[in-house]
Amino acid sequence: MTGFAFELTHRDGLARRGRMTTPHGAVETPAFMPVGPQGAVKAVTSDELAAYGTQIVLANTYHLHVRPGHELIAELGGLHRFMNWSGPILTDSGGFQVFSMKGLTKLDEDGVTFRSHIDGSLHRLTPESSMEIQSALGSDVAMVLDHCPPLPAARDEVELASKRTTRWARRSRDAYRGPGVPFGIVQGGTDEALRERSAAEIVALDFPGYAIGGVSVGEPPEAIARVARFTAELLPEARPRYLMGVGRPEDLVEAVAAGIDLFDCVMPTRNARNGTLFTSEGKLNIKREQYRRDPSPLDPSCGCETCAHYSRAYLRHLFVSNEILASRLNTIHNLAFYLGLMMKLREAVASGSFAAFRETFLAPR
Amino acid sequence: MTGFAFELTHRDGLARRGRMTTPHGAVETPAFMPVGPQGAVKAVTSDELAAYGTQIVLANTYHLHVRPGHELIAELGGLHRFMNWSGPILTDSGGFQVFSMKGLTKLDEDGVTFRSHIDGSLHRLTPESSMEIQSALGSDVAMVLDHCPPLPAARDEVELASKRTTRWARRSRDAYRGPGVPFGIVQGGTDEALRERSAAEIVALDFPGYAIGGVSVGEPPEAIARVARFTAELLPEARPRYLMGVGRPEDLVEAVAAGIDLFDCVMPTRNARNGTLFTSEGKLNIKREQYRRDPSPLDPSCGCETCAHYSRAYLRHLFVSNEILASRLNTIHNLAFYLGLMMKLREAVASGSFAAFRETFLAPR
Repeated sequence: MTGFAFELTHRDGLARRGRMTTPHGAVETPAFMPVGPQGAVKAVTSDELAAYGTQIVLANTYHLHVRPGHELIAELGGLHRFMNWSGPILTDSGGFQVFSMKGLTKLDEDGVTFRSHIDGSLHRLTPESSMEIQSALGSDVAMVLDHCPPLPAARDEVELASKRTTRWARRSRDAYRGPGVPFGIVQGGTDEALRERSAAEIVALDFPGYAIGGVSVGEPPEAIARVARFTAELLPEARPRYLMGVGRPEDLVEAVAAGIDLFDCVMPTRNARNGTLFTSEGKLNIKREQYRRDPSPLDPSCGCETCAHYSRAYLRHLFVSNEILASRLNTIHNLAFYLGLMMKLREAVASGSFAAFRETFLAPR
Repeated sequence: MTGFAFELTHRDGLARRGRMTTPHGAVETPAFMPVGPQGAVKAVTSDELAAYGTQIVLANTYHLHVRPGHELIAELGGLHRFMNWSGPILTDSGGFQVFSMKGLTKLDEDGVTFRSHIDGSLHRLTPESSMEIQSALGSDVAMVLDHCPPLPAARDEVELASKRTTRWARRSRDAYRGPGVPFGIVQGGTDEALRERSAAEIVALDFPGYAIGGVSVGEPPEAIARVARFTAELLPEARPRYLMGVGRPEDLVEAVAAGIDLFDCVMPTRNARNGTLFTSEGKLNIKREQYRRDPSPLDPSCGCETCAHYSRAYLRHLFVSNEILASRLNTIHNLAFYLGLMMKLREAVASGSFAAFRETFLAPR
């Protein structure tokens, strides 16, 4: 656990403002982690990530394991050097992709066997091998392998998955050899009793940080907010709390209200490539005819490169013309929006004005 | 012709070093123009273009006419503002695309009728309408509409096309109302006599600059160099000379040796997206297995962002993983290579060492 620490600097209601220190630098929380599935946040460079306030990046163990392979990345000096990102990196366990990408061929107490979506080759992931892969990648935070049941799932199934998640969490913790720290994951679906039991078991394993898993698999937003609220309260105050895979800007605000510190989601980057852009006045689909002659920036209150230099009319033209630059400029804007939102949330919590910020942000427009 | 000038500052053999002044700033020649077919140089921003030494951009009249339409661009303040490029822009006439994209439905003395490759709609391009479109775009250099016969073409056909090019050049010149200047185009295929006649006719029309057209349509490199050599000598010393659509790095060096000042080609950007990269040690195909574990930069003697921050192994991973960032980082490198080559050529001509530079550059590696 060398070089890892977490301190809370402010509280405002249940919302928290803190600082997570890692071997590759500090992360001011609450923080959003852009997702780089294959060792690159799609369409942007690591310099741009930093320029718009990215503090920590999430990379997918599954993707990097099947291509180019974690041994190759280790041989080349680790993921930080490989992707030219000198800040903190969090890696997931690979389990989420295995459970959700339909490559799963066998699930047993020891682990999961799956076929690569690239070439159909067979791979085996166990709590121990997942941590070994993450060690090879050199991430600052490594997630334990969890059993993430798909929705809808019977209560029995969720309960079995939660219990297995605990057993796998212990094995993951015991197997992990750094260079970062392992985070535990609480499962239990949307069931309060199951979440309570899972949280108690995982917290008993004494992880440096805790994630709330098994959300963002298709539940309505209210369910995500509810699970975040009651699960956050079950986690130790002094450790960082990470709500995995969430979500929309309003979901982030609600989760911060519940006391969550860390987030990741492909939404800003994926939506950007689909032409859906987040603005201070709501979402906007740039391919709509109404923007054909629109000389105004995407979001007049945004200072990103895209809004500073380009009109909606130009961005629409790039999008309908399939220009690569469309993905790029849209991604920059959406990331700037998410990262700017996190900065505002941190400021609101620090200044004790979070409730007002939340009310304004969530007010119907 | 307000704001346009050309001065030669150095000569070294037939090679020339000069400065072309336009309403949007000066261009040190010999210069290479990156191509932005749809109002964007694919995968890069205008700030990056400038950062790597782009002085002037070429945009395609055909593409911008069919989408989003030149009236729309004019309404939004012109192409410079639309694409956020404050430097000089040269537009082609649209003719090359019409003749080469198989949308041509009718060719007569007045002009060409063609179907849009986007929606099949019928469009008419005449010398007058091409200049009107280019005026609406607001380019600094507008090319006359020429008749560019495909290869192989019978001598008769080339001769007819050359004569028509002269008639169209006169109409284009007379119709053009600014804001830039029109350049004439010499046709005549690979036939010296036809080139000679075409050059005499076009030069008699007294254009501010002259292009050599009808090359780069499939001839062998030797033919391009030969045509450049004998056609350049037919053009007035005091006006800029532009070899359209050329070419490979070695073609540029040979054409500069012949006294050419301006170039455009999609090769650096298109090859980048296909994984073919230009380096000081020759071409390199980044998807080859041999680069899988290669920790070295693309080109150790290059200072671009791609070479400064990323390994061949990472660039190969991005390419085989279909990451947008691959197109982007590869494009930055190839443009840096081309623009860096032009800078070296300018320095060589200015210092009187062009012959030595040429010999070294063209020596077998």
